[in-house]
Amino acid sequence: MDLTNIKSPEDIKSMDVDHLTELSNDIRTFLINSISKTGGHLASNLGVIELSVALHYVFDSPKDKIFFDVGHQCYTHKILTGRINEFDTLRQYKGLSGFQKRYESEHDVWEAGHSSTSLSAALGMAVARDLKKEHFEIVPVIGDGAMGSGMSIEALNEIGCEQRKMVIIFNDNNMSISKNVGAMTLGFARLRAAKGYNDLKSNMRDYLTKNDFGKVMYKGMKGFKDAVKEQVIDKGIFGEFNLEYMGPVDGHNIRDLIRVLNVAKQHDGPVVVHVITQKGRGYSHCETDKEGFWHGVGAFDVKSGKPLHSTPEGYKSWSSLMSDTMLELALNDERIVAITPAMINGSGLNRFFATLPERSFDCGIAEEHATTFAAGLAASGMRPYLAIYSSFLQRAYDQMNHDVCRMDLPVVIGIDRAGLVGEDGETHHGVFDIGILKPLPNLVLAQPKDAKEARNLLYTAMHQSHPFAIRYPRGNVKIDFSNQMEIIPIGKWSIECESQHDRLVVVSYGADIEKIVNKVEVNHLPVKVINARFFKPIDTNMLDYLLETKIPIIVYETDMLESGLGTSIIEYYSDLHEQPYVERIGIKDNYVEHGALNQLRKSEDIDINYLFSRIADILDWE
Amino acid sequence: MDLTNIKSPEDIKSMDVDHLTELSNDIRTFLINSISKTGGHLASNLGVIELSVALHYVFDSPKDKIFFDVGHQCYTHKILTGRINEFDTLRQYKGLSGFQKRYESEHDVWEAGHSSTSLSAALGMAVARDLKKEHFEIVPVIGDGAMGSGMSIEALNEIGCEQRKMVIIFNDNNMSISKNVGAMTLGFARLRAAKGYNDLKSNMRDYLTKNDFGKVMYKGMKGFKDAVKEQVIDKGIFGEFNLEYMGPVDGHNIRDLIRVLNVAKQHDGPVVVHVITQKGRGYSHCETDKEGFWHGVGAFDVKSGKPLHSTPEGYKSWSSLMSDTMLELALNDERIVAITPAMINGSGLNRFFATLPERSFDCGIAEEHATTFAAGLAASGMRPYLAIYSSFLQRAYDQMNHDVCRMDLPVVIGIDRAGLVGEDGETHHGVFDIGILKPLPNLVLAQPKDAKEARNLLYTAMHQSHPFAIRYPRGNVKIDFSNQMEIIPIGKWSIECESQHDRLVVVSYGADIEKIVNKVEVNHLPVKVINARFFKPIDTNMLDYLLETKIPIIVYETDMLESGLGTSIIEYYSDLHEQPYVERIGIKDNYVEHGALNQLRKSEDIDINYLFSRIADILDWE
Repeated sequence: MDLTNIKSPEDIKSMDVDHLTELSNDIRTFLINSISKTGGHLASNLGVIELSVALHYVFDSPKDKIFFDVGHQCYTHKILTGRINEFDTLRQYKGLSGFQKRYESEHDVWEAGHSSTSLSAALGMAVARDLKKEHFEIVPVIGDGAMGSGMSIEALNEIGCEQRKMVIIFNDNNMSISKNVGAMTLGFARLRAAKGYNDLKSNMRDYLTKNDFGKVMYKGMKGFKDAVKEQVIDKGIFGEFNLEYMGPVDGHNIRDLIRVLNVAKQHDGPVVVHVITQKGRGYSHCETDKEGFWHGVGAFDVKSGKPLHSTPEGYKSWSSLMSDTMLELALNDERIVAITPAMINGSGLNRFFATLPERSFDCGIAEEHATTFAAGLAASGMRPYLAIYSSFLQRAYDQMNHDVCRMDLPVVIGIDRAGLVGEDGETHHGVFDIGILKPLPNLVLAQPKDAKEARNLLYTAMHQSHPFAIRYPRGNVKIDFSNQMEIIPIGKWSIECESQHDRLVVVSYGADIEKIVNKVEVNHLPVKVINARFFKPIDTNMLDYLLETKIPIIVYETDMLESGLGTSIIEYYSDLHEQPYVERIGIKDNYVEHGALNQLRKSEDIDINYLFSRIADILDWE
Repeated sequence: MDLTNIKSPEDIKSMDVDHLTELSNDIRTFLINSISKTGGHLASNLGVIELSVALHYVFDSPKDKIFFDVGHQCYTHKILTGRINEFDTLRQYKGLSGFQKRYESEHDVWEAGHSSTSLSAALGMAVARDLKKEHFEIVPVIGDGAMGSGMSIEALNEIGCEQRKMVIIFNDNNMSISKNVGAMTLGFARLRAAKGYNDLKSNMRDYLTKNDFGKVMYKGMKGFKDAVKEQVIDKGIFGEFNLEYMGPVDGHNIRDLIRVLNVAKQHDGPVVVHVITQKGRGYSHCETDKEGFWHGVGAFDVKSGKPLHSTPEGYKSWSSLMSDTMLELALNDERIVAITPAMINGSGLNRFFATLPERSFDCGIAEEHATTFAAGLAASGMRPYLAIYSSFLQRAYDQMNHDVCRMDLPVVIGIDRAGLVGEDGETHHGVFDIGILKPLPNLVLAQPKDAKEARNLLYTAMHQSHPFAIRYPRGNVKIDFSNQMEIIPIGKWSIECESQHDRLVVVSYGADIEKIVNKVEVNHLPVKVINARFFKPIDTNMLDYLLETKIPIIVYETDMLESGLGTSIIEYYSDLHEQPYVERIGIKDNYVEHGALNQLRKSEDIDINYLFSRIADILDWE
């Protein structure tokens, strides 16, 4: 089937089930090949191909609103809404987004990147529809991992109360990114295996086969409900929220899906359709993955499943460096416990979890709980290490403030994916954490320039008694396990290079330090480079020293300018009523789109080239 | 009974049920009288007297950890742990806190002020206990309102999975602050009225009366469980989380409470004890309150129930001013919808809810959902008004960022209780919102100086298409509904007073502006006063003008200094490489305790007196 012929969902309305199945298979082949070249979210997208086809067959987008929680599983939706020709630009700068984007298509009605916003959005849309007396369907698709996050439950609570018409697709693959956790999972498993299920299903089939798809009326729905009423249907947690429940249904059987969706559509209030899907369906390397390796992938060889680009020799991911160091510390300190909200693999905690399972906690997609759980541990004498992505830490801001920092508890927070992350785009860039954390009393906030400093910072964090957050970027770092770890005086910056006749200072942080120093040294520039490894507290002795030198300062940041490191520096000087020349480089007031990191840095004027063009200008001008 | 004789929970261990009941009655009388003088949280505390007595009778604090979600219902706990003599200082500066505080007593093991942190904390404590191989009980007390908040559910999800020993007291009064909402409430009501309940209860009674309190062994527990197993017990939502459930039990019957708690204590994993309490129990004015008027009260006359201090003539609360203005706008604009997370009364939305019920939404204690629900409405063409306390907005930071601001949706946020709030203390001060919101692209952030400006800002917000947050303080404002509302140019500040020969500028915001202007005018000071009513965007034209005048600037803020208005001003000047003299007044890097507003402002050096002492110094010095 020529998939490029599909310009809109209208083009599949006339297909029969066999054609729709063929379409699904062709989409699967296309996605595997296409993502093998561009990288992207593979496993989740392979799991929802038939579901997406069935949804667009039964509902009428864009009149009906179909949207995906988290949003990275929308590839089939993009194909069915006429975007297949852009897949070679997937996740690239100015190319097709890996998420639903309202600017891309009228079929993308909601945007997300963080989990568990879809049900709240759906209720908002439903209330708006009803107040405007409009008539259309609202169809959020949400996974079982996202369903267990608090925000989803808050939404279910009001949806069950409001009883607005909507069809909630519960996409149950028993995985979030890695294996699902939490007691709710047991309930979902019970629903999947419920005694009533087969009876229900055959009843539904008996009932439905007496009807044409389009002619199933509410009266019929009621009849159906009566038919099953006497067999106590276990609605699981959805029953507790006063929601109608249908399912489970095989998410890879288009015929069953269409039948159930057509019935669900008739229901006058909110109904949950429980769809069982298999993550990675149809691609064997993916299907057997329980750790989430195939959640988001780079380019890979289709046949072998091997990545085309591997971690270079002598390097490892920042995540692994941090987590393995914590494991090393934990082996000598029984107080240390590791916590992750559903990111064992992403945060490089695999070894920690395998080695010290009794001190390892995967809280699921529950950043709020994970953070206060850490606070509870710290209040009881333990030394929890919470590894959390910067952009997801945003979910736990109040817990960081109200619980961790206010009670001044010694929680160590590894802020992963800090800074721009590249292809995942706007929702995943970790560029806000400095600004929201810096005003919190009691907190220490740091970022290492390299592996050795990262290890020393963790060691330092474990040898003090305040909340201590260490941010580090996506990507790899040169391995250096050589040193005996040592304490870095809190708040102390370091001079990375200087000479007698410096005419400029660059103050920066993180992995860029090495690049800056190299370029300064190679070119024999009269430039001091300061590693501002602590954002809070700042090194006021160093700032006093820089003031004395009377040379201009460039603060080079790769996060939001507002409330960044440069802000702290000029606040300090302003309060002294001193004003050295300070120039701030950083991300201006906008949300940064998706694309390769170097392209984004270039477009935001925060790459090393831009820094050195400013250095050149200032040195000439001086 | 002389309550002052109670120095620790040990002192009630030898009492029999009749004495414990008498004790409870005496505590009730004491609390009503004491709070009638000091103000405080009355209704919730009257509801948990017997429960608190029974908990301290059955468990051994501080070895066993008894703590209260939110924490404002801990008064009886404070009395039983030897703090009755400090009740005349309740909520006063340097006096007894209205919440549990670890520095006050070894019996206060956790601190809160925001809802729904107790279960995460309990799990942290339980894991720490088990890893250290210690043995004690963990007893979080959580209300039904807090139970519906997402964070609680995230915790239940992991508690049900971990199966650590703890006794969760589910304090069900069918009220959070005002009447409870949400579908979960239906489940709770079903549990309360469950057919199995009476059978269960009489079974339990039969069983228990054959045992002495202290001798109920786990073997017994198992026997009990077997006895009830055959009567399908409806465990409600707790069953979905794999938790044992006991109850419901009458929360005002000490004998029943002790019996159930003694059984619960024997259970080896997590067990939920469902306790039915009546908010305001024993004080008729309180008992009949369904709106939450008696949640937090000022001093009142015990007999009549009337407040001793009423809103002065010609004034109303800032909350009511904002909400009533929104109602006025909504009557002419069908797109406007009001949303509150469980604060109809607190946010002054009573009239809006009564007048336009179909456009009024109380989401319960669910700030995250409420915010994204608003985003969903805005994405569908509505103009939601979300009224939310500053300190609770912290819970919705990610939703403000990821949903509202990133999608640039026209949600209007009324940030209530901005600034120091006084007696509620550390957890309730609304002093962080400027810092966390200012870095968000697309957002407008403003604060009015008076009623007229507040109305104009709301009007302005409704006539533009970006997210627009307006912060306003606790307390009253002079009513001024006289003007035809008009648009304020976004980002434009105003000069409130100036003269030819000014030698100083004060830049400030909010209700202090009027006081500053009065004092400047009365004393004929050569001081310009600028109303910086927009934090974002700032008025760069005004800043350019001030720069030209070359006179010193004092930025007078009553929120956190870090990342505040002054920060934006010095960032602007620094980027221009200009440096007028700028002095910043604001809250330094610490959590501000509880106490009367004027005392807190004095102790933090942010009161008007301090400002004018700085003005005097600078004018002399100039």
